Amino acid sequence: MLEPERILRLEDDAVVLLDQRLLPLEEVDVRCESAAEVADAIRTMVVRGAPAIGVAAAYGYALAAAYGEDLAEADRVLRSSRPTAVNLAWALDQMHSDPSYDHARRLHADEVERCRRMAAHAAQLFGPGTRALTHCNAGGLATGGYGSAVGALLTAWERGLLAHVWVDETRPLLQGARLTAWELESASIPHAVIADSAAASLMARGEVDCVVTGADRIAANGDTANKIGTYSLAVLARHHGLPLYVVAPTSTVDLATPDGAAIPIEERDPAEVTARFAAHNPAFDVTPAELIAAIVTEEGVHRAPFAASLAGALAVA
Amino acid sequence: MLEPERILRLEDDAVVLLDQRLLPLEEVDVRCESAAEVADAIRTMVVRGAPAIGVAAAYGYALAAAYGEDLAEADRVLRSSRPTAVNLAWALDQMHSDPSYDHARRLHADEVERCRRMAAHAAQLFGPGTRALTHCNAGGLATGGYGSAVGALLTAWERGLLAHVWVDETRPLLQGARLTAWELESASIPHAVIADSAAASLMARGEVDCVVTGADRIAANGDTANKIGTYSLAVLARHHGLPLYVVAPTSTVDLATPDGAAIPIEERDPAEVTARFAAHNPAFDVTPAELIAAIVTEEGVHRAPFAASLAGALAVA
Repeated sequence: MLEPERILRLEDDAVVLLDQRLLPLEEVDVRCESAAEVADAIRTMVVRGAPAIGVAAAYGYALAAAYGEDLAEADRVLRSSRPTAVNLAWALDQMHSDPSYDHARRLHADEVERCRRMAAHAAQLFGPGTRALTHCNAGGLATGGYGSAVGALLTAWERGLLAHVWVDETRPLLQGARLTAWELESASIPHAVIADSAAASLMARGEVDCVVTGADRIAANGDTANKIGTYSLAVLARHHGLPLYVVAPTSTVDLATPDGAAIPIEERDPAEVTARFAAHNPAFDVTPAELIAAIVTEEGVHRAPFAASLAGALAVA
Repeated sequence: MLEPERILRLEDDAVVLLDQRLLPLEEVDVRCESAAEVADAIRTMVVRGAPAIGVAAAYGYALAAAYGEDLAEADRVLRSSRPTAVNLAWALDQMHSDPSYDHARRLHADEVERCRRMAAHAAQLFGPGTRALTHCNAGGLATGGYGSAVGALLTAWERGLLAHVWVDETRPLLQGARLTAWELESASIPHAVIADSAAASLMARGEVDCVVTGADRIAANGDTANKIGTYSLAVLARHHGLPLYVVAPTSTVDLATPDGAAIPIEERDPAEVTARFAAHNPAFDVTPAELIAAIVTEEGVHRAPFAASLAGALAVA
């Protein structure tokens, strides 16, 4: 288990980020000494994962305040660093009233605590011997500690409910093969990395019991944006009669976005897919609420109709 | 368009194969001077694609006969070099009665001629402005010339029916990104490479009209083994109301295999997925006939019930 401050932390004069692009081969810190440098690190995916980039933005904003930077400009550059995850905007909104280091650190600690709570809720969805399939990295690296979907797997494992995890390698940036497999390995949880396109075949052979993912933004109706390929898994899970569980903190739920059609989808550099050929590289997709069995936040397990259950969760949170 | 003899050919003293593992970055020939060397080249995927490995095996067998090798042993080593494609066994069976160079070269020419015929049949399935999605490489490289699924795209393009091709990169060996994109580029056909997991999202956005793939083995009932990920596309296509067309020569149809459950699926080295983590690397999957809109061979467009239409096609072929 990576300590939260190993993943990202605020020092007196810098935001320090573990460079997730180089993991697991190298553990290198990146020091950011301005809001603009933090925004660059978010854009280039030194730090990634919706809750973690929210925390990084909060740290960047606190740093800008301490350095006497223009806070409106700091907010603008951080908020626009990536478009899909709503946590960036949420974390900056939180920071406006109190841009202190203490507040930013409390926001980080709260995200990790939310992960523990949602993992406990999600583990209730696992029967004994569960073989789960996950996509991308919704682990401690993505949330600043413990993890959302991977947190749920950790808790299910501690409770003796988890038999095996299939890890989509998650092209093009291989967050599953590089980051999720590394986190599961650290926790000694049995797992195997698969090519993303092999998931359907495993489902057809009865080797998957459920699909568990994180989220980058959950619209008011439950439509969920997450790493490209999540929607594919949702359709495949439905075809094979398997549940898809989305595990995410309430900071990822955006009641101001009515449905998936209103979520901006980031289009990243085609060179991530291939440097040589014409390519198309959407980074996220939207899974219609209709294909989601349950959305788990730190407030509990929410079922359809999601418009009501999510609004209820946020009213509590 | 690659000339058939550029892809693979039989010289007096060797089978010469264009090394498909290095394409498109390097064009290197591999010379095989025994049946065992040809079998090695098939196993290590110097040459791949069901019809092409059938031709390579025929060439290897003819070479063994010319060199006075033990033909039973040559047959055994070639036949067992890869398990899923039936074309290996089919081509060797053809060669037993006449292991001459002429016969092997005629078998090669026949495969290319079958491609032309099936492409003409398949093109009839394309309406104007078709945006097709393909997986792996069912091109000239896979068949020894012209191609099956890619051959269909070439003919549709020549007839003005094709607007765009989405090319699944096809992990783990990237046959789509490396080989299919290269063939389409050579033919000036508009295309873009995508991560395999992005196909569903494109379908949901209405940017795909049909899915076109080749096949490694088609069972008597129409169940079709092809590169891992084809089954995933089949389920996704069905969910989005899109047809899946399988384009393959009759040499790929195996009436002795009753259904998909009887097709052996090759399990390749996990290191192809990742050298660092536990991995699972099935190379093929089976798409149930129920999810296939049409199977196109050189004999025509075959529809369900496939048990009858395929048996009819083979009776003619």
